[in-house]
Amino acid sequence: PMIVLRTPKGWTCPKEVDGLPIEGSWRSHQVPLGQMHENPDHLKLLEQWMQSYKPEELFDENGRLRTEIADLAPRGERRMGANPHANGGTLLKSLRLPDFRDYAVEVSHPGSVTAEATRVQGKFIRDVMNHAIMSLQLRIFSPDENASNRWADVFDVAGRGFVGEILPTDDHLSPNGRVMEMLSEHQCQGWLEGYLLTGRHGFFNCYEAFIHIIDSMFNQHAKWLKVSKEIPWRRPIASLNYLLSSHVWRQDHNGFSHQDPGFIDHVVNKKAEIIRVYLPPDANCLLSVTDHCLRSRDYVNVIVAGKQPSPQWLTMDQAIKHTAAGISIWDWASSDQGSEPDVVLGCCGDVPTLETLAAVDIIRQELPELKVRVINVFNLMKLQSPREHPHALSEKDFDSLFTIDKPIIFAFHGYPWLIHRLTYRRTNHKNLHVRGYKEEGTTTTPFDMVVLNDLDRFHLVQDVIDRVPTLGAKAAYLKQAVRNKLIEHKHYISEYGEDMPEVQNWTWPGGEQ
Amino acid sequence: PMIVLRTPKGWTCPKEVDGLPIEGSWRSHQVPLGQMHENPDHLKLLEQWMQSYKPEELFDENGRLRTEIADLAPRGERRMGANPHANGGTLLKSLRLPDFRDYAVEVSHPGSVTAEATRVQGKFIRDVMNHAIMSLQLRIFSPDENASNRWADVFDVAGRGFVGEILPTDDHLSPNGRVMEMLSEHQCQGWLEGYLLTGRHGFFNCYEAFIHIIDSMFNQHAKWLKVSKEIPWRRPIASLNYLLSSHVWRQDHNGFSHQDPGFIDHVVNKKAEIIRVYLPPDANCLLSVTDHCLRSRDYVNVIVAGKQPSPQWLTMDQAIKHTAAGISIWDWASSDQGSEPDVVLGCCGDVPTLETLAAVDIIRQELPELKVRVINVFNLMKLQSPREHPHALSEKDFDSLFTIDKPIIFAFHGYPWLIHRLTYRRTNHKNLHVRGYKEEGTTTTPFDMVVLNDLDRFHLVQDVIDRVPTLGAKAAYLKQAVRNKLIEHKHYISEYGEDMPEVQNWTWPGGEQ
Repeated sequence: PMIVLRTPKGWTCPKEVDGLPIEGSWRSHQVPLGQMHENPDHLKLLEQWMQSYKPEELFDENGRLRTEIADLAPRGERRMGANPHANGGTLLKSLRLPDFRDYAVEVSHPGSVTAEATRVQGKFIRDVMNHAIMSLQLRIFSPDENASNRWADVFDVAGRGFVGEILPTDDHLSPNGRVMEMLSEHQCQGWLEGYLLTGRHGFFNCYEAFIHIIDSMFNQHAKWLKVSKEIPWRRPIASLNYLLSSHVWRQDHNGFSHQDPGFIDHVVNKKAEIIRVYLPPDANCLLSVTDHCLRSRDYVNVIVAGKQPSPQWLTMDQAIKHTAAGISIWDWASSDQGSEPDVVLGCCGDVPTLETLAAVDIIRQELPELKVRVINVFNLMKLQSPREHPHALSEKDFDSLFTIDKPIIFAFHGYPWLIHRLTYRRTNHKNLHVRGYKEEGTTTTPFDMVVLNDLDRFHLVQDVIDRVPTLGAKAAYLKQAVRNKLIEHKHYISEYGEDMPEVQNWTWPGGEQ
Repeated sequence: PMIVLRTPKGWTCPKEVDGLPIEGSWRSHQVPLGQMHENPDHLKLLEQWMQSYKPEELFDENGRLRTEIADLAPRGERRMGANPHANGGTLLKSLRLPDFRDYAVEVSHPGSVTAEATRVQGKFIRDVMNHAIMSLQLRIFSPDENASNRWADVFDVAGRGFVGEILPTDDHLSPNGRVMEMLSEHQCQGWLEGYLLTGRHGFFNCYEAFIHIIDSMFNQHAKWLKVSKEIPWRRPIASLNYLLSSHVWRQDHNGFSHQDPGFIDHVVNKKAEIIRVYLPPDANCLLSVTDHCLRSRDYVNVIVAGKQPSPQWLTMDQAIKHTAAGISIWDWASSDQGSEPDVVLGCCGDVPTLETLAAVDIIRQELPELKVRVINVFNLMKLQSPREHPHALSEKDFDSLFTIDKPIIFAFHGYPWLIHRLTYRRTNHKNLHVRGYKEEGTTTTPFDMVVLNDLDRFHLVQDVIDRVPTLGAKAAYLKQAVRNKLIEHKHYISEYGEDMPEVQNWTWPGGEQ
């Protein structure tokens, strides 16, 4: 049942002001009556309008609202704000989640296997969906990117919602479908926000570059969460979860137009108590954080993860510890055990992690005397000052990880200055050198994308050589060797259209192809 | 004349692959034929498909395109890229601009008059439009905010474009109107981009908070400019100019939902050679930069300026020098002439400038021995490292302005960390303390908006006291006095619904109400 009431715009406002129509015109949306101090005619009109509500019938002689009028207001759950459908948190039930550890990729040794992280995550999501089918608690929203971002397994248990005619050649359409696909990021975001507000759960599965389309809508949802947290009767709702895949570093055939890692920059401008940003380096970390996000409340969770086959680094046990900590030294990649490091290599994001480890491999082979510490950042907000974000590392922990005086080469998924913005108050910030996306790209090979932005293994080795003062003559030869590699790379891709075998087939020492 | 050609989606691609329809279905938009290395059937299909183009008719025995085929391609200006309508820069003519100095606000003394900056700008724009009417060179685009942002004078010479039925009570609608108003930021941005690409000029007049709606469209235009600059035959086009008004600090009756200064953050992620960001402190500076933007090519210019009555600081002569420099010491507000300052107060944006000067007024009265330097930043990119932006101040100039060791209290229009991000490489960054928008707001008075974000004059005085180590007992009394002022402020606005007279009526010493 639906009641449709059509009224003039600005119904019952002063019909005319200064000879111009107000009711029923666009002027009722402006300031129809201004200049109260200076214009007695307007003041008179205002009084007439207020009098038209007949205050003498509404208020008693003491100015109090008459009881029979006050009694017209609904009571209890019929009040607009107390209606559970308008305070969805009161209806929210936790999802029944399968054990994410059952979906783990078996990693016998760092880099020993490759996997497509979001495809692994998709199997977990499929079973979360399966549990939630009967309770109608979960929907996925995607601008036609659910399969492209490797969550196609979800279609085994839930189709794409579609109520029109279905043709035999259509793919997983269903009127009961719980995957809401429409090539409109706005529509997906709007659906999801409304769905969360009614006390259900959801995930937005999107290409990274195009999530900017809903920047403004995200703003308003984040503002809504901030304000509703200050209102005691508003119950927490499920977090708004984003998976951003098909990310800036793998736009091989799409190119420059599909590269933009700046949604993170946009998100971290909002209140720290609302926003969470995760960059899992591999599939097991992605599984762990997906479970976490589906359990969380009143946040906006942004997960950035690749979909392409990539080396896997951590066992599930290691991944759980790493994601719980948010930032860790990767001891198996480091060579500074029992002493001070000469240089710290930080990395955040799956592709920067790969390039950092490949750089470390070169350094450990060619400059074995150099003591290297490798730190992976999974929870971006660990870097920020503890004055700014509840997840932040303490100053002491930060100093202990990054040292107070050693050079830091930091390889980041997004714009490099975001790392500076988050860490400018840290003790060793002056020695922090960040590589990341600097708005360079084209239709080229995967490795060339990182080369164009100086984020590749060879540039990282150069950065280390440039910043460790104690390296002598041997380093000069190495610097020249990696410079030559970059030239070989350019020639090779221009001739063969794909990356050099030594880049494509590189594995962490002891790992297998 | 228009030719409408309807074809099946993916027309002429392989009709069917693995038993599924490709031509005429959504699958033609995916990767219809993959696994060339592993699947001989797919390789066969690919060959059949390529053969369907009958290469033997197209190429001669040496593999060269046959002359009669090559001759079918258009020549000269009929080539798609060489058609002047597709390379609008070849058609671009400079606007005939009236002398912006003729629109100057007369400022006999800093703060001696008030003006609405964008209304002053609107008169200049009106006359620019008037000159351009016959040559059809200029349009304004606005999501129904042209009058609200105080450019209503433009309607004296050009109406709002509208081709439907016009009613007598409509306001400046005209089928020849050159102000394109539609409550869709997307539509305005799309229109404007297309218009610029055909070799004309335009301005986007928008509320600051809602320009985020076109974040993603801005991205693609900025990328387009970056790439087209690398293509020698592409001629420069007019810059994409944004006026962002009704900004974060004056959302009195709109409140929190209308506050977001983050478009600047988004813009400065793009290539430095493309983007320009200006925050004029008053109307004369706004006039000067408007003239500059209308003459520029191949940039995205973002101007952030308020529309509310505000004190005017600079004469036109001073404004021209200030905007040309991009950053200056305001000597008339400073008290450190002939010596080192004890503290530097930086400001950027009209409201932060007002609050900084009001703070300086208090400091100079209450702590006359303190040597204060006031620096106004008009061109935001002056702050960035010279390694990053062509407009940047040299390190030497920056050190000379901001000192190498004195505390800097910086009042900024936008998110405070943007200033840190731009200046983290500067010598005195460690002593830089920035106030700005930290995502606090509600429906309240203008002054309360700055108080909620610690950007007001009283907080700035506290910041100075906290950071100048040499201030003694007298400062403790002053700190308590301004703390009490903040309490009085809260009580006053809760009782009267407007700001305290001493705040509303404050003027720079020697200025008149």
